[in-house]
Formats: sequence, C-alpha cells, structure tokens
Amino acid sequence: MRVIRLFDRDQIDRVIQINRDVIDVIEDAFTLLSTKKVEMPPIMRVDIPEHHGEVDIKSAYIAGYDSFAVKLSTGFFNNPNLGLPSANGMMILLSAETGEPKAVLADNGLLTDIRTAAAGAVAARHLSREDSRIAGVIGTGAQARYQLEALTHVRTIEHVLVYGRKIEKAQQYKEDMEMQLGIPVEICSSPEEVVAGSDLVITTTPSTEPIIKAEWLHAGLHITAMGSDAEHKQELEAEAVRAADLFVCDVKSQSQRLGELRGCLDSDTVNRAIELGEITAGQQKGRTHLGQITICDLTGTGVQDTAIARHVFQILHLQEDDESERY
Amino acid sequence: MRVIRLFDRDQIDRVIQINRDVIDVIEDAFTLLSTKKVEMPPIMRVDIPEHHGEVDIKSAYIAGYDSFAVKLSTGFFNNPNLGLPSANGMMILLSAETGEPKAVLADNGLLTDIRTAAAGAVAARHLSREDSRIAGVIGTGAQARYQLEALTHVRTIEHVLVYGRKIEKAQQYKEDMEMQLGIPVEICSSPEEVVAGSDLVITTTPSTEPIIKAEWLHAGLHITAMGSDAEHKQELEAEAVRAADLFVCDVKSQSQRLGELRGCLDSDTVNRAIELGEITAGQQKGRTHLGQITICDLTGTGVQDTAIARHVFQILHLQEDDESERY
Repeated sequence: MRVIRLFDRDQIDRVIQINRDVIDVIEDAFTLLSTKKVEMPPIMRVDIPEHHGEVDIKSAYIAGYDSFAVKLSTGFFNNPNLGLPSANGMMILLSAETGEPKAVLADNGLLTDIRTAAAGAVAARHLSREDSRIAGVIGTGAQARYQLEALTHVRTIEHVLVYGRKIEKAQQYKEDMEMQLGIPVEICSSPEEVVAGSDLVITTTPSTEPIIKAEWLHAGLHITAMGSDAEHKQELEAEAVRAADLFVCDVKSQSQRLGELRGCLDSDTVNRAIELGEITAGQQKGRTHLGQITICDLTGTGVQDTAIARHVFQILHLQEDDESERY
Repeated sequence: MRVIRLFDRDQIDRVIQINRDVIDVIEDAFTLLSTKKVEMPPIMRVDIPEHHGEVDIKSAYIAGYDSFAVKLSTGFFNNPNLGLPSANGMMILLSAETGEPKAVLADNGLLTDIRTAAAGAVAARHLSREDSRIAGVIGTGAQARYQLEALTHVRTIEHVLVYGRKIEKAQQYKEDMEMQLGIPVEICSSPEEVVAGSDLVITTTPSTEPIIKAEWLHAGLHITAMGSDAEHKQELEAEAVRAADLFVCDVKSQSQRLGELRGCLDSDTVNRAIELGEITAGQQKGRTHLGQITICDLTGTGVQDTAIARHVFQILHLQEDDESERY
C-alpha cells in the first residue's frame, strides 16, 4: 500500500503563487472543458442549518489525465463570530488509473482562491481591451485582492478604483494593494463611480441584489462577475447581461442555475452566451473590437480544481525528490 | 489554524474491530436516521470509463452531532490485473460547527467493510430467529467474511454453509473462517442447498442476475442481501421480495433505485417495505413469530459512514491523549 501524503496550507502556500504559469494552467483547463471529454457531475451539497453552514463537493475528470481532484469546500457563516474564516476546504487528488488517493491537499481554500483569480485573468486576457489601464474592483475581500493581483499578469494596470460598503475595509484594501502591487488605489463612493471610471471591472461580492446597472455600461468596458455562485446571489442587472455585446461564462448550465444567466429568462440571451473554453480553444472569438461591451460570469468549475491540484502536487513532488537527493 | 491528522489503514486497523460496540454504534445510526433530522444528499458519482473506474461520494449530517463524514469510495475494476484491490476509499471527518476538517481517515475501505458488516448484524439481531444456529453465506469475498464475523456477535452460530462460484475460493473461505471463528464451515454445491439448510442467509455478491429464488424460501428464514448497491445489480428474485412476510431495507428510496426493491414494480410491496431504523427506533416491529420469512436489503448509507468515522476518531483521539501523557 502506498503512503498518502497530507500537505497543509503552509506547505502549499510556500510553493504556489499567482503567476503566468498558474494562469496558463487554468486557461488550459478551460480549453479541455470545451475540447475533451470531461466527467463533471453536478455539485453535491450538504447543509448544516443549525450552524449556518454548507459543504460543496466538486469533482471533474478530464479524459486522458492520470489524476483528478475531489474538492470539499465549506462555508460556515457563524465562524467570523468565533474568530475563524467562514470558508475552508481541501482537495483530494486521486489516481485516474487505479482510484488510489495520491495526496490530500489541506489547503484551507487557498487553491480555490488562486484558481478563481486565475480564471478572472483568463477572462481579462481574452475579453478586456489590451490597452486597459484602469481596473475597477467592487468588494474588498480575499477575491478582490487575488483577482487584482492575477489581472496584473495579463494587463498593465496603472490605476485602481475600489468600492466597498465599509469604508474601513476599503481603506485597508487601498493600503494593502498599494503596498503589494505598487499601483495607486482610489476609493470610490459608489459602484457607479467605479464602473464609470474603469476600463475593466471585477465584481467580487456575495450580493443577493444586482449591484451593476445596465445604464452604467459604456463602450469598451469589460466586466468579470465572480461573486454569484448560488441560487440566491446576483451581481448584475439582467438588463446588463442582455445589453452586453458578448456574454461569456465558464459553464452555461451552471450560470443559468447559480450565476448571472439565472436572471435572464429570454432564450435569445441564453443562446448568445458562450463558454470561456470555446474562446480559449479558438472555437469562438473573444473581443473583436475596441468599443465592444463584454461580460464574463464565473461560477467555478471542477476542471479548475483538478488542474490546480495536479499543478501544485507536481511542484510538491518535484520538491520532495530534490530534498531526498540532498540528504 | 489547527493541524489536520491523516491516519492510514494500519493505524485504523490497530484500534478497530468488529464487536458489540461497533454494532451498537451502527444500530444507533439507523435509529437516528428514523428519528432525527438527517441531511443525506444523493450519492455523487464520477465515472472514469477509460479505466473501468468509478468514485462514489457519500455524506450525511445528523442534527445535533458535532461532526460528520464525507466518504470517497472508489471501484477500479482493472486493478486486479495490476495486482491491486479494486476498492479503495477514505473518509474525511469535518466539524459540523465550523466546517474545519478534523481528520482524514485513509482507511482504504476498511471502515466501509466494518460498518457494512455491522449493519448486517443489526438486521440479524432484529429480524432473524433468536435460536438461529446455521448461517448460510453466498459469496466468498471480504464481506462474506466480515458479515459472518459480525453475525457471531448477535447469534450463536454453530454451523456455516457456504457457496461460491469458484471452488478454490470456497475452500479458502472454509479454511480461513474455521481458523478465525472456530465454527465448522461446509461447502455447498448450489445457492439452493445453502438456503435449504440455513436459518439465516447472507448474500454478498455483485451479481446482476437474481441468485435466490422465491420457491426456496422456507418458514422462519431470514435473508440479508447486501450485494446490490447499483442500478444493474440484483441478488433476489422480485418474487422472493414479494413473498417475504416482512421486507426491510436501510433506505427505501435507495433500495428502489439501487437495491432489491428496484425489481418490484407493484406499489403494494413498496408500501409494505419498512426501514431498519424504524425497527431499531421501536416505531415498527421486527420479527414477531418464529415462522415468519424476513428479508433485509442493505445498500449502504452516509449515516453509517458518519457514525463509524466519529467512533474511530474518538478512539484514535483518546489513544493520542494517552500517549502524550506517557511521554
């Protein structure tokens, strides 16, 4: 029997960061989703109503790959009262040839944060104007940070506009991101102000009411909406989705169930929607002219989990080989 | 951040065996299934057709419990050609209060084997005649062994009849079980011979065709059918299910989808079926007289996984406390 290794968040954190490699790995995953046979069962969910908690289980097997991941992600919304983060999670990497577990990545949600941000960068790479200089960010949490960091690897961002409901958090975001990325961050007093001043906007909120109105859209704008991933969440007015020249999502059926397509009941909008993997695979075009208004809705997919788990395991594995050589 | 411990099969094997404690733990789990609010989503399945493999993911949260398990079990049917067992698996125990992972039990399917056998003993305890002396076993694999072992904790078995399609395997079963349990085992030349001579029969095969015929049933007989757990499997003739005086299953909807109720299209048989937890909870009666013919169909439930994972984690935990005291 082979020994199964458990890697904790610190061990994983030491070997992975958001960079072009990771963005390329996630871009490849989207391409595979559109070109290869992928087994991706619907998300399994366990509700723990007493503790305001939920567990989501995702998995995807990509034909021809020697391994695949099963991911548990938890959201327990009383945790902040206990001084704990509400999100947690781990991935289990299994051999696709024998079913044997290869590793437990007890990453505490880190890999999900990274693969989600990387997907945002893939969307920006194919949909935002190449000359985008001003990025708008709605929300001030972990993804507001990771998404902006990932974006800087595919676009030359010179200025950031941010809006958060709590001014202290927006202030903290400004300080942290200016320090981390060396880019000036300006706090706006409304989402409208952010949208008006930006070439590209990322929405990262758990909002259940639309934040972005159709009337704010302007020529050349790109929006990545990554907040909505459940039946009750929505960040964009349905009219905004309809008004976009190009509406893209990670998985159409998921966007209809959990994402921004949920609000669009007209079949025309749904039929026009294309998947990000069709663009990365070259089957469909991304942005074709400067004045286009583009939107990308990301709900999160099991292929991203499989791709990032494989990637980090490979790094950890190589590192161990190195270490065993040294001793 | 708390440290998550991974326990491997050897570590788990050292602290758990089939005994009355484990059988009681599993009996309690069935009672909870009928008396408490249980969140038990449908089984999630990932198919890996290229390698003749599948992963099943089960989970159940029992209201009021401080933890619950998510189980991955794999079946890769080319593995025997590679010298590996086809089944594998692990359980992850999560805090029901915060979602934090408490432990990874990389048990390689051992806990599933034990909780499945324990469920068989619970069924025998409530449904077989108390004076059952002769046990019949169809099949010679791991469950044929674990089920018999578990049975000896609730009934005084003096003689065993076994049937297996391969005589060498039946011979090995006889040798192993006589050595392990000190009970004489007799090899039969047909399933019919086993049923005819037994007070109680356990079927443990992956058969896709019924093995047990209705005409073989005799007064006082109890059958536990634990083999069928998928849409294409069946061990009992539908007519046998209909002919039983009492038909019991672990979860009715699962027995209809994956178990022996699948073959019964008449609503009368389905309506008469009761769940094992209703009996252990005292809401329904088990065997009421000696001549009754009873059948219990076990397809496997997430509450059993949660119950056994909690049980073994408690033992491992206590042991660690002991060890840390010693040093």
